[in-house]
Amino acid sequence: MSLTIKQSVTREAALNGLFEALMNVYSVSDDETALADEIEALLRDQPHLTVHRMGDTVVASTSLGRVQRVVLAGHIDTVPVIDNFPPVWLEPGDERIREDVEKANPGERVMLGRGATDMKASDAVMLYLAATMKEPKYDLTYVFYDHEEVAAEKNGLGKVAQVHPDWIQGDFAIIGEPTDCGIEGGCNGTIRFDVVTHGVAAHSARAWMGQNAIHKAARILNRLATYEPEDIEVDGLTYREGVNATLISGGKGTNVIPDECRVHVNYRFAPDKDLPAAKAVMMGADTGAELGAGEHEATGGMFEGFSIEMKDESPSARPGMDAPLAVSLAELVQRKTGLAPQAKLGWTDVARFSAIGVPAVNLGAGSPLLAHKADEQIPESQIILLADILEEWLH
Amino acid sequence: MSLTIKQSVTREAALNGLFEALMNVYSVSDDETALADEIEALLRDQPHLTVHRMGDTVVASTSLGRVQRVVLAGHIDTVPVIDNFPPVWLEPGDERIREDVEKANPGERVMLGRGATDMKASDAVMLYLAATMKEPKYDLTYVFYDHEEVAAEKNGLGKVAQVHPDWIQGDFAIIGEPTDCGIEGGCNGTIRFDVVTHGVAAHSARAWMGQNAIHKAARILNRLATYEPEDIEVDGLTYREGVNATLISGGKGTNVIPDECRVHVNYRFAPDKDLPAAKAVMMGADTGAELGAGEHEATGGMFEGFSIEMKDESPSARPGMDAPLAVSLAELVQRKTGLAPQAKLGWTDVARFSAIGVPAVNLGAGSPLLAHKADEQIPESQIILLADILEEWLH
Repeated sequence: MSLTIKQSVTREAALNGLFEALMNVYSVSDDETALADEIEALLRDQPHLTVHRMGDTVVASTSLGRVQRVVLAGHIDTVPVIDNFPPVWLEPGDERIREDVEKANPGERVMLGRGATDMKASDAVMLYLAATMKEPKYDLTYVFYDHEEVAAEKNGLGKVAQVHPDWIQGDFAIIGEPTDCGIEGGCNGTIRFDVVTHGVAAHSARAWMGQNAIHKAARILNRLATYEPEDIEVDGLTYREGVNATLISGGKGTNVIPDECRVHVNYRFAPDKDLPAAKAVMMGADTGAELGAGEHEATGGMFEGFSIEMKDESPSARPGMDAPLAVSLAELVQRKTGLAPQAKLGWTDVARFSAIGVPAVNLGAGSPLLAHKADEQIPESQIILLADILEEWLH
Repeated sequence: MSLTIKQSVTREAALNGLFEALMNVYSVSDDETALADEIEALLRDQPHLTVHRMGDTVVASTSLGRVQRVVLAGHIDTVPVIDNFPPVWLEPGDERIREDVEKANPGERVMLGRGATDMKASDAVMLYLAATMKEPKYDLTYVFYDHEEVAAEKNGLGKVAQVHPDWIQGDFAIIGEPTDCGIEGGCNGTIRFDVVTHGVAAHSARAWMGQNAIHKAARILNRLATYEPEDIEVDGLTYREGVNATLISGGKGTNVIPDECRVHVNYRFAPDKDLPAAKAVMMGADTGAELGAGEHEATGGMFEGFSIEMKDESPSARPGMDAPLAVSLAELVQRKTGLAPQAKLGWTDVARFSAIGVPAVNLGAGSPLLAHKADEQIPESQIILLADILEEWLH
């Protein structure tokens, strides 16, 4: 099977057919090549597009000499399959349609299967636009990329941003992550680090010969347990922060006083802070804790006095809702869906665009709450709605 | 090589020769058979002894019709070798002699090697007595047993106590664990259990959708961190208790709010308490937490309100220093060494004798602080001193 845009059918049938075809190509992370090949072939068939490929990421651009350029991006990989591949259309009344989906979209056909919301519905819309929209208001760049659902260093968009940032430059970017066709702007940043206590090992029958590193971690957990998440407004959107221990480990044996305890802390911070500002809140401004640099004593912040080892850091992205393109898109979305722009709380690839100076938002078909679920599914109308919004905005 | 008692040499040389021979047979836990075979052969050569064997445990008894019977027991296994096998005699001045050993025993030869203090020196003395002491004041039973240094269920003395308790019955028992030839009486009991908190998993970007089980463990660590160990006197000896977290674990991923946290707690309790009393202090008297019975909510005690899962329990042993045999031995030891009886803080096999109604103490050659060390070593005079004490007491 290869991807095609059916000419002889209605726009709705063509969109659904393309979506169904995308759904039927297995593309769990690390296995995107087959799908990338098909997407590349379809895009190369379009004379109005210039196509690049790097790994399993395919980039296609118009060159119409417009004043502004908009980037539309979607990842083509999915999380692993859980008895939800191949996909299946559920007719109205099918008991596999979730109650919440049925309630919001009564009497609709629903696509059930891996990638339905995250994010082959949005991919289908973008691919449809790539093939059919030959005279858009702005120049357009389409990015279909691999390895979004796995470790950041494998991310295809990230690789292109590093090696060929010119391929994805623009005045505004839309990533099709599922948002129920609302706009989610910017994203919280995230840092992860170990807060480490040290003790002195001893046999637990003679505990007073040692120092218990796990007991010393009590003060760390107390600070976490009494932390109150803050809501922070940036460019009119409200971001909720969070500081959480996600892992804890310590001890070498059931009868040994532990000489080390590690509390792995994840700080999700609002886009009013860059990475250094976020670190200052956790460990003081001048601690010197960097990735791969081992342990450093926190000179201030929430974990002042404890030893810190950085494990991961990803910057936040400002929502950029004051950009004129964002304003016009937000107005249209609100008119079509009733949804006001929301803050994105999880970290997403909008931050990669933000890092190369391109304001970006998430706008995609399907419910974000169903992403990664075994019964991941999407009603037909979401796909049409997303196509309606983008076509109207780009015409 | 087989074990022999040399007849043509001095008593000291015969003892040292036997010790050296024991040291030269590798007997890390699980590999005791060769040594057990040699010990069995030597004991079966003695017409005044009746010999039993079960697995790699060898039991030999006199049957002289004495009013009282004393049991002398020693384990024959060692912890794993760390470049300390085969053993070597160090001549005075050798730099491998530890400073503390040299200071306490200036100008002496020192045996360096795995098992030197824990506990082949005591084994050598007991084996020497078994072969040479034909008219003791009490009937004697010698127990040389396997698997002391590993999981309790493998312990050879424990197996004999279960299957053939009659083999090791007596009025008093001495275990030759290293005590610098002092008496260490009774032992603390030990229980180990998990204190468990439960939460609700969620993505750490939306932490407020979940409940953080690691944060809930703050209260557990606070109780542990503020605990003050108690000293408790039993039969004139002072036992120090201890409550320690030895392990902690929690969390399922770096970006997931943890739904469980386990704090593994070890309570070392004085012999004024039996197991139910010790549990009452930790979790209330009627919690119902038993080995293999899963989680139960603590109804009282230090961890009231938390979920408890029992992992291990070993009773304490009263020192029994009021038994007439204990009194006479303690007097002799104090005269010979200046050492008053001490409480044993770690759990030892004296509790196994205690459990079958035999008062027992630890009394053995060498420093307990050198057991398990890479430079485990013992000065010659310790072996002679232990032999002097036991021969005088048993004659």
